[in-house]
Amino acid sequence: MAQVIADRKDIDFVLHEQFKVGDLAQHDRFAEFPKKVVDMVITEARNLAVKEILPTFKIGDEVGCKFEKGVVTTPEEFHRAWALLREGEWMALTRDPKWGGQGMPETIAIAARDYFIGANMALLLCVSLTHGAARLVELFGTAEQKETYLKNMYTGKWGGTMLLTEPEAGSDLGALTTVARKNPDGTYSITGNKIFITSGEHDLTENIIHPVLARIEGAPEGSRGISLFLVPKFHVNPDGSPGERNDVFCTGIEEKMGIHGSPTCSMALGEKGNCIGTLLGEENKGLAEMFVMMNEERLLVASQSLSSISSAYLYALDYARKRVQSAQAGVKGGAPVAIINHPDVRLMLLTMKMYLEGFRSLIYYIANCEDQKHVAEDAAQKERFQNLIDVLIPVAKGYGSDRAVEMCSMGLQVFGGYGYTCDYPMEQLLRDVRICPIYEGTNGIQALDLIGRKLGMKNGQLFTDMLAEIKKTLQFAKGVDAVGGLANRFEELVDGFALLSQQIAQDAKTPEALKRIANASPFLHVTGDVVMGWMVLWRAAIAAEALAKGAKKKDVAFYEGQLQSARFFVESILPVTQGRMAAVSDPGSAVLDISDDAFGGK
Amino acid sequence: MAQVIADRKDIDFVLHEQFKVGDLAQHDRFAEFPKKVVDMVITEARNLAVKEILPTFKIGDEVGCKFEKGVVTTPEEFHRAWALLREGEWMALTRDPKWGGQGMPETIAIAARDYFIGANMALLLCVSLTHGAARLVELFGTAEQKETYLKNMYTGKWGGTMLLTEPEAGSDLGALTTVARKNPDGTYSITGNKIFITSGEHDLTENIIHPVLARIEGAPEGSRGISLFLVPKFHVNPDGSPGERNDVFCTGIEEKMGIHGSPTCSMALGEKGNCIGTLLGEENKGLAEMFVMMNEERLLVASQSLSSISSAYLYALDYARKRVQSAQAGVKGGAPVAIINHPDVRLMLLTMKMYLEGFRSLIYYIANCEDQKHVAEDAAQKERFQNLIDVLIPVAKGYGSDRAVEMCSMGLQVFGGYGYTCDYPMEQLLRDVRICPIYEGTNGIQALDLIGRKLGMKNGQLFTDMLAEIKKTLQFAKGVDAVGGLANRFEELVDGFALLSQQIAQDAKTPEALKRIANASPFLHVTGDVVMGWMVLWRAAIAAEALAKGAKKKDVAFYEGQLQSARFFVESILPVTQGRMAAVSDPGSAVLDISDDAFGGK
Repeated sequence: MAQVIADRKDIDFVLHEQFKVGDLAQHDRFAEFPKKVVDMVITEARNLAVKEILPTFKIGDEVGCKFEKGVVTTPEEFHRAWALLREGEWMALTRDPKWGGQGMPETIAIAARDYFIGANMALLLCVSLTHGAARLVELFGTAEQKETYLKNMYTGKWGGTMLLTEPEAGSDLGALTTVARKNPDGTYSITGNKIFITSGEHDLTENIIHPVLARIEGAPEGSRGISLFLVPKFHVNPDGSPGERNDVFCTGIEEKMGIHGSPTCSMALGEKGNCIGTLLGEENKGLAEMFVMMNEERLLVASQSLSSISSAYLYALDYARKRVQSAQAGVKGGAPVAIINHPDVRLMLLTMKMYLEGFRSLIYYIANCEDQKHVAEDAAQKERFQNLIDVLIPVAKGYGSDRAVEMCSMGLQVFGGYGYTCDYPMEQLLRDVRICPIYEGTNGIQALDLIGRKLGMKNGQLFTDMLAEIKKTLQFAKGVDAVGGLANRFEELVDGFALLSQQIAQDAKTPEALKRIANASPFLHVTGDVVMGWMVLWRAAIAAEALAKGAKKKDVAFYEGQLQSARFFVESILPVTQGRMAAVSDPGSAVLDISDDAFGGK
Repeated sequence: MAQVIADRKDIDFVLHEQFKVGDLAQHDRFAEFPKKVVDMVITEARNLAVKEILPTFKIGDEVGCKFEKGVVTTPEEFHRAWALLREGEWMALTRDPKWGGQGMPETIAIAARDYFIGANMALLLCVSLTHGAARLVELFGTAEQKETYLKNMYTGKWGGTMLLTEPEAGSDLGALTTVARKNPDGTYSITGNKIFITSGEHDLTENIIHPVLARIEGAPEGSRGISLFLVPKFHVNPDGSPGERNDVFCTGIEEKMGIHGSPTCSMALGEKGNCIGTLLGEENKGLAEMFVMMNEERLLVASQSLSSISSAYLYALDYARKRVQSAQAGVKGGAPVAIINHPDVRLMLLTMKMYLEGFRSLIYYIANCEDQKHVAEDAAQKERFQNLIDVLIPVAKGYGSDRAVEMCSMGLQVFGGYGYTCDYPMEQLLRDVRICPIYEGTNGIQALDLIGRKLGMKNGQLFTDMLAEIKKTLQFAKGVDAVGGLANRFEELVDGFALLSQQIAQDAKTPEALKRIANASPFLHVTGDVVMGWMVLWRAAIAAEALAKGAKKKDVAFYEGQLQSARFFVESILPVTQGRMAAVSDPGSAVLDISDDAFGGK
């Protein structure tokens, strides 16, 4: 039977052959997760995702969330799925068991999430946001705050959100106007309005805990005067049960293109003058604290992008195998064949496959760096892994979500007219995934983060560390017969990219800097292509080695598929990347020179 | 006030400065359309589109079409818009006044349609399909068929469709199974089922005339045995009024991603054994006859793509001018500015602008070739214009609609989170335009048409003619100071493209041909890029000349904007195109070599 959501063979390959996740069990911290347990976890996650969560995918879209008088109702079927995720303790896999977690490596958790998110991205948003909010409590909360909230959040009994955005403060959080006034008892009275709040209100949990960005009266203007507060929907009684309703209400939900199963709420705080919260962390450090969570949230968006590509690919592949239409190219009057035999369809499928594989490896790699950081023994090693994470996050989020929109659209195209109808999941996948380039920092902001912050950070050390890892893969691949030629061609690209990054970094303090900034997005895409090449070459080298050693018959086709993906990258993508590099390397200034009036439209 | 749908200045520039459409009035055929009349027509079209049709855009999406017991109801507001289009005689602008047309040049009509389609693509589909069906009657009908149907169709009193697709015969029309049995009176009884029939049933007109592809009993298999029939919804009484209901019924409409205002119908013919039609044209020539309309239908899809980019650009531009957020790049602590000042937003806007301008010129150019063909005096000239049309149609449809999806998505991105909500038109534009790469021949088929048919046709004459036109523009541009440098860089690209096309054409009968076919889509995209470059360079050369001669103050910014678009193409797109050419020039065979099993997913 055709696989859905994610190809188990591919996940196993990445976990075990590429990242050897079972080896983490050699360290005390992860001793409970040898290979056997990993496989069990993935099998269970997959079963739950395919059998119980995937059936809610279309329901979430069609039924959606309803808003009436401050109350948001989610589809009935979501409640059962939520309960199963809670019962299976799937909501905080990597967290400390003391707070309801499983203490699992991130690399395993990300594979489980690959299935869950792919089964219903909209529903899983609420799980992930709850996790992120709880992380803030764990990292910055007082002992009392942790006791009050943490376990209930990590176990999905209570939900969590992030109240950042305001109508006039979207990407520019420093401009926000929500105010907090300190009360004599040390709590704060908060007044303001927030928009685009995912899961700001819903009926899946008995309480919802809102981390809120606000400015304490008299605090400095801009980002230096923002603090973080915890505002529960229901105040918590001394016995830990939800008590009195707090003055934080949903005033409406957005009608939007997709993720209809996820309520995007407008929130009013303190309309009755009675919204009470407690300070989370330090005064005026709210933005920095919130940003600690940014890597997690951006990796989440990257995971959504990955899962969307994965689903789109598997659906398109299955359709292409079953749909019979037209004779083989060059066979005049031949019998109609399955469309997977048509070169143009194969081109679409192999394009999707290549990006899917490269992107899955990238996302799991980032998760693996988290684990390696934890088990690394010296500080320099830890820093190196953090550097890799920091440089790869904007690539995974920005480049990944742009590719995800393209690949879901390509998957839809494989279905022809049927793909445009609601009879197949393709159009929903495309509508849902279109949010990914926008939220948690638009892709424009990811590009600026990469070129304006990460590139120059620590004197270029982040890029140096990434390039060193790429070189390791190149060395490995050059030693494997079947991929040596591909590695040589990829090396040219990498060398060019290294030069380009240096060149751009050097321009940072010169008058050329603005031209570089105007080319931030093309540079992000070049970086992403290089990273894709790195990942697919790495995979191909492993596969070629396995084939050379004499792989099991049932694995041969998969391994050969890895070689074809890498060949496809080198043959069809790499020359285009070189063209992109040429454009970024010698950027023009039309974008900066054109006057406002010359854009026309008036 | 900000312009919507299309920038009038840009339309005027293309009509008058680039294609000098007023000069057509020197020919008898178009004597009634001097510049002054052209301007009046465009002004009226624009007023009607902006004031009366655009307000139905969102209604069409939200209310959509309803199906109940064989009856399809369109939104109430569509009826008024339809009536106004009829009253203004906008439905058959270029047709013979004898049949209710206006005898207008295509170049003017396409500009009027630019506004109408941009105002409501879903509604205009019904207008265009009616026109296309009527054209079949005009070209292949008997005198009686013409008398009975033609004027009513061209004036929008009756609707028209195209009944081609069947569940198992989508792109492969030769496989269709609808059967026609000849009756003693010379009519045919037709039995079969059709799907994806745009406007197959609706309540905008008192009758609907269906051209139907079917196989006469005993006819050869495949495409050589297909005939075309005319099947009216209501038989026509001797006095010309609609009479008895024919046995052709809508059995349902598709739920789909967009164009909700356009009913996509499943049609059952002869379920009661009583669907009666008349032969249109010759027996067994149906497919060839239907294909006569293909250029018109594909140009329509290209127009839809153009209008979508145009609307998306103007909305995004207006938003970017009004939305204030974050300080200027490099100005630390500066006041927030309109986002049009941010380099990344400018990059998106200029990208959209460049494709919009290049694409508008291309579409109008194709329309202009139609007019030039009509007024050309010798057969060789006529053939040359037809060659240009034939080679550019798959580029306009395939490349254009792919870019349109991208550009609408980019326009949405300019709005950030707001773009994803239904409060702004961006997400609908994207959902609507996503059909364009699919219908009237998927873009994969357009690519095959270009590389497999048009490239080799007449010994390469079509490409030769196109390249000769590009060279003319190059010669002109090289003589204009301000764009000479750009022209030189573009010439390199064109020379490379000419070589590449030759190389591919030579491979057509060799074992390399399959590799070429597998790269049909990348080749289409390379061709499209070259054509975009051609058009924007042409525009820039005209603008530079105008500036050099001393343009009016009110026109200076527009002309400068043309130079910036061409610079942007050369600086930022051209190097990427060169990369694409490199990949297409030396194509690998991973796409062909990968085995079915190696795609995975099982």
